[in-house]
Amino acid sequence: MFVTFEGGDGSGKTTQASRLEEWLTGRGRGVVRTREPGGTEVGVLIRDIVLHHRGDVSPRAEALLYAADRAHHVQTVVHPALERGDVVIQDRYLDSSVAYQGAGRVLGPREVRDLSLWATEGLLPDLTVLLDLDPASARARLDADDKPFDRLEAEQDDFHARVRREFLALADAEPGRFLVLDATASPDEIAAAVRARVAALLDARTS
Amino acid sequence: MFVTFEGGDGSGKTTQASRLEEWLTGRGRGVVRTREPGGTEVGVLIRDIVLHHRGDVSPRAEALLYAADRAHHVQTVVHPALERGDVVIQDRYLDSSVAYQGAGRVLGPREVRDLSLWATEGLLPDLTVLLDLDPASARARLDADDKPFDRLEAEQDDFHARVRREFLALADAEPGRFLVLDATASPDEIAAAVRARVAALLDARTS
Repeated sequence: MFVTFEGGDGSGKTTQASRLEEWLTGRGRGVVRTREPGGTEVGVLIRDIVLHHRGDVSPRAEALLYAADRAHHVQTVVHPALERGDVVIQDRYLDSSVAYQGAGRVLGPREVRDLSLWATEGLLPDLTVLLDLDPASARARLDADDKPFDRLEAEQDDFHARVRREFLALADAEPGRFLVLDATASPDEIAAAVRARVAALLDARTS
Repeated sequence: MFVTFEGGDGSGKTTQASRLEEWLTGRGRGVVRTREPGGTEVGVLIRDIVLHHRGDVSPRAEALLYAADRAHHVQTVVHPALERGDVVIQDRYLDSSVAYQGAGRVLGPREVRDLSLWATEGLLPDLTVLLDLDPASARARLDADDKPFDRLEAEQDDFHARVRREFLALADAEPGRFLVLDATASPDEIAAAVRARVAALLDARTS
């Protein structure tokens, strides 16, 4: 089973991915916890360019770099784990590219989605948890964090508003794959909702 | 005017690009001499991954990295130079991706071409000089060179045979854009043939 967490920075993806990992591990499931960009050795090099390069990176180059990271990551990490029967829990996947590069950078959501599907030979998650948070609250959480912003975090609020609208549109278009949760709910409530959906999916597979 | 040199490693692209540059500069033309991958600061980082990474790079990731390099290079180097009225002379462009990743790596020439056209918003060269050389002669030239092989040079002969066939097929499909020359001819003969074609193109533009 392939589960992805999506949402803006500061929406709690890492916390919730960890909570789900603990719960599944406690139930004896093999789990691979990973992320994009940067889930492989090659990916770390790519992540360094897209998030930390000081000069400009052209928008199409940025989208292609994310797709390259994804192609390598799916082939060398995700597919082998799924073939072993492990659950893959991943921070960000193709929906992030569609939202950030397709809508945020205005390259076109459909073209960026096609690019990712070519990169991954069509692999879609079984479940995508979208932690929805308005940009102002996300900004406040990041400010409180005191870490320097990366290239995407440093974008303006209208960029992040476009990204959020696209995430919600993606969830509307594929209600069977998405679970949309309010990121301002308590971490315990969110974790419980995620567990309930994952448990239902696992039950459906074993029965 | 946008001129690209294509062909296998060891076919003499660099020598001929230099000869053309000297000739154009001598006639008072502004020239930008560049290459892919690696013609920009971001490109150098990408080149390092695709040519010198020690571990595997998945074939789709490789194709996407070349496309990312190309997107950034066209937007930040090629387009500005063409808008200034300079002649751009470039070592390798999209035909290399189609031949090496599309045919060599068997990803499909058309898909790889579409990827490059998306990356560059459809920019094609005015002239592409293909320096055609059979793989055995290319290998002999590279062996004589005594430099360590990069990831593509180290591929087997059947890979290089597929690459050569694809280059020739591309030239057949677009005879107006391609000038195919026998790379075993003398450098002077090749340079003269390239100059003749470039001169004709420049004359056609000014008349």
